[in-house]
Amino acid sequence: MERSEAVVRLREARVGRLATVRPDGTPHVVPFVFALLEEDEGLIAYWAIDAKPKRSASIQRLENIGAHPSVELVVDAYDEDWSRLWWVRASGRARVVSSEDETTRGLAALREKYPSYRDQPPIGPVIALEIDRITGWSA
Amino acid sequence: MERSEAVVRLREARVGRLATVRPDGTPHVVPFVFALLEEDEGLIAYWAIDAKPKRSASIQRLENIGAHPSVELVVDAYDEDWSRLWWVRASGRARVVSSEDETTRGLAALREKYPSYRDQPPIGPVIALEIDRITGWSA
Repeated sequence: MERSEAVVRLREARVGRLATVRPDGTPHVVPFVFALLEEDEGLIAYWAIDAKPKRSASIQRLENIGAHPSVELVVDAYDEDWSRLWWVRASGRARVVSSEDETTRGLAALREKYPSYRDQPPIGPVIALEIDRITGWSA
Repeated sequence: MERSEAVVRLREARVGRLATVRPDGTPHVVPFVFALLEEDEGLIAYWAIDAKPKRSASIQRLENIGAHPSVELVVDAYDEDWSRLWWVRASGRARVVSSEDETTRGLAALREKYPSYRDQPPIGPVIALEIDRITGWSA
């Protein structure tokens, strides 16, 4: 899959699955919502720590990226007709956003993409996934 | 979520996402199909290396579990109504199946669950994910 096509599919996906590595070196994977922005420094996927009750899984991810900043996320479509399968994987480094400007930008992108966030804003913090590699596959 | 309910949702899910850790310690995540069996030794999810052209991602996972046998998989449902979200995560250890009996059992379970495998059988090997922890969440 062309990179440009992979970027479009990543941007449009409604849900992704984010893999991190726990402090003890074992993998952790949870579905998550995110908004992809193309910044001067490259592609950044923003996600934010939700309000309860999903908070505990989110917090585990924060601990994981504190210990191991490398992350990988995947978006895909499943279909019983396997000739229609595809996925896009993106890997890079996660960092907790500290600047107020970037927090505002990330939250705005999330609210824009997900109407549910307008009623129930995420608590934060916002996490930036700086993507340095993107790979796509389709059947 | 009750464990019994989590097991049912894991068994019935048509697709999962499998997280492994690469030899260099970074996470890797790819969608995959699997069949869950309840054996005397506990829950085992079987998957098999596909025929080309998905083979390269499959082979990366084999390398990963050779270096780091710990795995985690997640199944979930996404819905724009976030009160309907749920996920089930299962973690454990992966091992490449060497016995002929277990290979036959794993492939039979995969063919039974996925009609597409009847026309295009996986090349193998079969990999067993021995699940030692299962956690479910629903909104």
